[in-house]
Amino acid sequence: MSEYADLSPGGPGVGAVEKRFFTFAQDEPFVLESGAAIGPVTLAYETYGALDPDGANAVLVCHALTGDSHAAGVYHGADPKPGWWEVMIGPGKGIDTNRHFVICSNVLGGCMGSTGPASLNPETGRPWGLAFPVLTIGDMVRAQKVLLDHLGVKRVLAAVGGSMGGMQVLEWAARYPETVVSAIALATAAKHSALHIAFHEVARQAIVADPDWNGGDYYHGPKPAHGLAVARMIGHITYLSDEAMRHKFGRGLQDRADFSFSFDADFQVESYLRYQGRKFVERFDANSFLYITRAADYFDLGATHGQGSLTKAFSRGDTRFLVVSFSSDWLYPTYQSRELVQALKRAGRDVSFCEIEAQWGHDAFLLDSPRLSGLVAGHLERTRRDLGRDLRRGLP
Amino acid sequence: MSEYADLSPGGPGVGAVEKRFFTFAQDEPFVLESGAAIGPVTLAYETYGALDPDGANAVLVCHALTGDSHAAGVYHGADPKPGWWEVMIGPGKGIDTNRHFVICSNVLGGCMGSTGPASLNPETGRPWGLAFPVLTIGDMVRAQKVLLDHLGVKRVLAAVGGSMGGMQVLEWAARYPETVVSAIALATAAKHSALHIAFHEVARQAIVADPDWNGGDYYHGPKPAHGLAVARMIGHITYLSDEAMRHKFGRGLQDRADFSFSFDADFQVESYLRYQGRKFVERFDANSFLYITRAADYFDLGATHGQGSLTKAFSRGDTRFLVVSFSSDWLYPTYQSRELVQALKRAGRDVSFCEIEAQWGHDAFLLDSPRLSGLVAGHLERTRRDLGRDLRRGLP
Repeated sequence: MSEYADLSPGGPGVGAVEKRFFTFAQDEPFVLESGAAIGPVTLAYETYGALDPDGANAVLVCHALTGDSHAAGVYHGADPKPGWWEVMIGPGKGIDTNRHFVICSNVLGGCMGSTGPASLNPETGRPWGLAFPVLTIGDMVRAQKVLLDHLGVKRVLAAVGGSMGGMQVLEWAARYPETVVSAIALATAAKHSALHIAFHEVARQAIVADPDWNGGDYYHGPKPAHGLAVARMIGHITYLSDEAMRHKFGRGLQDRADFSFSFDADFQVESYLRYQGRKFVERFDANSFLYITRAADYFDLGATHGQGSLTKAFSRGDTRFLVVSFSSDWLYPTYQSRELVQALKRAGRDVSFCEIEAQWGHDAFLLDSPRLSGLVAGHLERTRRDLGRDLRRGLP
Repeated sequence: MSEYADLSPGGPGVGAVEKRFFTFAQDEPFVLESGAAIGPVTLAYETYGALDPDGANAVLVCHALTGDSHAAGVYHGADPKPGWWEVMIGPGKGIDTNRHFVICSNVLGGCMGSTGPASLNPETGRPWGLAFPVLTIGDMVRAQKVLLDHLGVKRVLAAVGGSMGGMQVLEWAARYPETVVSAIALATAAKHSALHIAFHEVARQAIVADPDWNGGDYYHGPKPAHGLAVARMIGHITYLSDEAMRHKFGRGLQDRADFSFSFDADFQVESYLRYQGRKFVERFDANSFLYITRAADYFDLGATHGQGSLTKAFSRGDTRFLVVSFSSDWLYPTYQSRELVQALKRAGRDVSFCEIEAQWGHDAFLLDSPRLSGLVAGHLERTRRDLGRDLRRGLP
């Protein structure tokens, strides 16, 4: 990938950005796959770069489980936290904001500005809590489609995302192939496995076991902080590989020379997990965690779009694909990406696949990787060149 | 292993057995590695088979995290539950009770008859709770040594165990090499890794997050059932492999044709985990779970017995070793057994190693496996033959 050696993932970002809000389904409710209907629906979103006059440079970024619309840049004022994919999105980066118009929205069911269980239920004037309908990855994507229509984006050069973001990307390609010129699916799978479901279920049980969860009705009292922290700790273990944990922590002790012979956080890895748990509680809504993990567990693209056949689910349109897995990712192992790639090939899709050697486990897709940035930049560049050629030829 | 083709793991067991109790440290307290002292100390134990006059046929079985002394047979009367290693221990089985005298005791710190945090603190007349001293795998083994002395067992033909039982086996070999003719360590490691510690820590946090845990003082009120159930569910995920989960559950639904669009246990794997959580709460003490996992996390044989060198930890005596790992065990992966084997070889020990192809993950060591039973039987047989020859020659 020497042609992309000048990528600057560590370089300057997109600068100051602004969180925007788009509200729809004010008159007609938004009907979910379950049959339940909600409205109005608000999506929080951000954009970086500018849409070309021909509309051919839009890139939709889909976030993972606990991500949000703040994928790149910094907010004005009080919160200088950079976006969660700062290493990938920006001038001269893998998704080059000098060339592309990037859109990222918080998923439906989320808690970072989009409508979710913590939002007010218009019928009661109180937070939805568990009265919020259980939703699907398909519902999240359908809501994003309404946002894109609102923004005047008729077609995206690429939908890009990792983990649950990758599921949304695949859902986009199966549901709206005519809208998605290319799909970049990182560290993901076409359906959730028993192991995925098991980890999510235990995390959910940790939340509902917390008395402060109170059947989901805790918005006027203490939050289920202990349960949510445990849920997050479980997640963090699955995001790292055994090897990454050995390199990062090993059996190192935290601020002490020997064991405490107590239940203090003697080991660095204990201290790390407790910290991650505490930090998460400050920013995330426990009910959103329940709903979003449930949506991911329900995800089975072949079942939803192909009557049980993943190949059939990808039989429409001519979306091209880039699929990337990471060698040490045991949560979304490479074999799951290979299954996806095989189905895409059988469906006649143009697909590139790469397993990146990386020791950091599932987290690798979020980390600074010239290899990954190069793959994404190259895929976008080739797709745009081919799309331009097709447009000049008057092809759809 | 054709010579052991007549092993009958599924055959009749040792029949009716009885749980016994041995109490020591009544006058002099038992001093732990932390420096804390407790007494009296009771160990619950069972034995199967008969000790030969030459005392050369004793086999010590060490149990894993949540096991107990009931390794084989059935109790008289009310509780017909077979022992946890019924497939391995019995007439004609891997550990043949027609030929061997088998001893298994509940670990110090446990809750199945041995002294632990749920026992009465003689100074207060109330359950110890968190006043119970944090203990080590070394302490568990030292207590077992007192029991063997009491039973008149001067030497064991083999110490055998898997997982945390395997740690005790290794501790035995490093601490009392003159007592252990051979050591059979299954699905284990010479030290706990960051990943092991991480899973244990999250399980402990699930318990202490339960308000009913009440700082460990819950013996006269409701038990921290929710927290302990979540801890157990985490454990169960780590005991199975991704592959095993796919075969056992896949995305199968539990008693329903379609999703509930609720947070019910739609998936079989969810139902399984919830059931395992509930069942565990009935039989296990939450504080014991904290203490025993802590002991396992503190385990680092090279640090304790070899000044940081695992090879040095095994430099004394002439214990012979059988080390077995399982291909799909991601909790105690084969590379950890290989590290152990390399250290044993460098220390000049006689060691056999086998990685068994098995899809069931860490649980494999507990399951019916003619291959494993054959390996254990063969190792015991050869060890006994060589020991007899040495005894006839007057060697130590």
